[in-house]
Amino acid sequence: AKTHTITLLPGDGIGDEIMDATVKVLEAVASRFDLSLAMTSALMGGAAIDATGEPLPAATLDQCRASDAVLLACIGGYKWDDLPRATRPETGLLALRKQLGLFANLRPAKSFAQLEGASSLKDEVVNGVDLMVVRELTGGVYFGTPKGIDTDPSTGARVGYSNMIYHDYEVQRIARVAMDIAMKRNKAVVSVDKANVLEVSQLWREEVIKVAADYPEVDLSHMYVDNAAMQLVRWPKQFDVMVTGNLFGDVLSDCASMLVGSLGMLPSASLGDGSGPGVFEPVHGSAPDIAGQDKANPVACVLSAAMMLRYALAETDAADAVEAAVEAVLNAGWRTGDIMSDGKTLVGCKRMGELLVEAV
Amino acid sequence: AKTHTITLLPGDGIGDEIMDATVKVLEAVASRFDLSLAMTSALMGGAAIDATGEPLPAATLDQCRASDAVLLACIGGYKWDDLPRATRPETGLLALRKQLGLFANLRPAKSFAQLEGASSLKDEVVNGVDLMVVRELTGGVYFGTPKGIDTDPSTGARVGYSNMIYHDYEVQRIARVAMDIAMKRNKAVVSVDKANVLEVSQLWREEVIKVAADYPEVDLSHMYVDNAAMQLVRWPKQFDVMVTGNLFGDVLSDCASMLVGSLGMLPSASLGDGSGPGVFEPVHGSAPDIAGQDKANPVACVLSAAMMLRYALAETDAADAVEAAVEAVLNAGWRTGDIMSDGKTLVGCKRMGELLVEAV
Ligand SMILES: CC(C)[C@H](C(=O)O)[C@@H](O)C(=O)O
Ligand SMILES: CC(C)[C@H](C(=O)O)[C@@H](O)C(=O)O
Repeated sequence: AKTHTITLLPGDGIGDEIMDATVKVLEAVASRFDLSLAMTSALMGGAAIDATGEPLPAATLDQCRASDAVLLACIGGYKWDDLPRATRPETGLLALRKQLGLFANLRPAKSFAQLEGASSLKDEVVNGVDLMVVRELTGGVYFGTPKGIDTDPSTGARVGYSNMIYHDYEVQRIARVAMDIAMKRNKAVVSVDKANVLEVSQLWREEVIKVAADYPEVDLSHMYVDNAAMQLVRWPKQFDVMVTGNLFGDVLSDCASMLVGSLGMLPSASLGDGSGPGVFEPVHGSAPDIAGQDKANPVACVLSAAMMLRYALAETDAADAVEAAVEAVLNAGWRTGDIMSDGKTLVGCKRMGELLVEAV
Repeated sequence: AKTHTITLLPGDGIGDEIMDATVKVLEAVASRFDLSLAMTSALMGGAAIDATGEPLPAATLDQCRASDAVLLACIGGYKWDDLPRATRPETGLLALRKQLGLFANLRPAKSFAQLEGASSLKDEVVNGVDLMVVRELTGGVYFGTPKGIDTDPSTGARVGYSNMIYHDYEVQRIARVAMDIAMKRNKAVVSVDKANVLEVSQLWREEVIKVAADYPEVDLSHMYVDNAAMQLVRWPKQFDVMVTGNLFGDVLSDCASMLVGSLGMLPSASLGDGSGPGVFEPVHGSAPDIAGQDKANPVACVLSAAMMLRYALAETDAADAVEAAVEAVLNAGWRTGDIMSDGKTLVGCKRMGELLVEAV
């Protein structure tokens, strides 16, 4: 079998623990399906800042580029929050996305029947939710120029600015990703913008409509971002695929995560045009408050690995097996603290990983 | 008694119905408290476009400027959605805010015990919620320049851009509004930004921190906008006052509205520096699908009138009486369709207005 090379970026906080658990699951699935996975760790985020002064060292980026896929746990923490912007963990993450051309961020929000009751929303509102947020990841106000903070030297008055900007080709390619995904799902795309106020959104909407002409089977509609945030909470089952810009996608996908009950269950995939590796990572952060205490939920990272097997390595059977293992372990009543409820059995991160290995 | 002059802007869709109901409530409270209210209607939004070609005619703006307060029902509708941006109803609303210098938008989200069960969130999550979103309303990406859509004449490639920009004084004055409000509430302010990515947010955060130095009793914390959207859904009772920019406030206040159960219950106030009138309006839109059918809920408009009595006209007793009337009518089991539930009595917009008048 062809060897798949994978760069592991454990990052910060609970990253080491959840990555350890995930690697063991990957090893188990590799042995079951006779895959050859060559996994090598590299420094990223706060850990990289401490070791090298930079959140994304050149050696890490080179290693990622030379891999078939990148699995990232999580980055950041209070420790690095007061550093100048250029040397903060988040800046490394943004640079990784930009350097690898990862313009498409896929964030599924699918409710788990086993976690009924875990969400702050009513069961009838969230049961059966199965939606995909397709977020543009290398454009918009995250990367737009001009940007900066200027100070008037005579008065000391200050002004801060960040340009929300999209080029037509950027909108078109993310719209295509969303349409292609919708074709494999329920063929309904809601494009989210603020076209009643923002010029950048008006362009967004016009370009999405153009792309949709190539997908006559897909039902495209448009929603303003304020209404979309509301509708996600009001009746999320109305959504199949949502496509939106970088900032709106950041907010809406976090909002959507609440439908599932815990951020600890949510994977994501960041993909480019296929010429380089994708990055697979949990939606959650590094949770420095529980780091090192064996309390973290490794499931989001494990499901990110499943997305990696599916989208980057085309190992569909292995991906299915990992996802089935998660279902089986939940069905058997095992829970980490974030998803614990009456009558279930509380386990730590390490034990949860072992249970997933056994289930594979 | 001094005469308070009020400009009424019924606008579009359900605007006429809810404004009629609200005016009757205002008349009732005026007669009970011996107030002299001089109320005159003016054209705004789609209705103004149809009559004059412009969403905010100069005559309307002049009349607003000469008033002590402006009460706006709602604007917009499918009919005007395809007009060029300059002549759309929303553009009139943005111009009204800008021209009157209404930089502070107050959007309370307070759950009604009588509506238990109306929210898509669990009762234990939303009961007792009482928060105030303080949204900056005349700056940020809504009004920033440069903005536009450019087309490269040789290639036809297009780019759209809208500048998210804040000046220090804009942040400082809205931060003061939030702090002043917090001092009359639970003395806790959460400032929402995206300072880990955006320069404009970094400036925002720094300026809010400066202002907070003048309010040692207020507990100030900071939250990224993605996390804030999530926390609003996860555990909204953690919030007292949230202060944020124009776009983030647009999204978060709509999200917060879901805590209460229906947009039909939510008022807002838009205030300037006190030199001109404020605008008071429901958070909901013009609901063209139910317009003219006597189905709309007038309560948000009535509660906006109560905010007007309180904040603009300093008629505290009258404001209290209007709010008490809403409570009384809900306690007696009367409900419009949007907040209907088992065992309650369904009424239309007109009858709801009459019940509120009787309760006053
Ligand atoms: C850490 C931060 C820069 C990042 C983002 O805003 O994209 C995060 O919130 C995410 O959604 O992956
Ligand atoms: C209609 C629209 C321009 C407006 C806004 O975005 O401010 C509305 O959504 C609001 O929140 O009042």
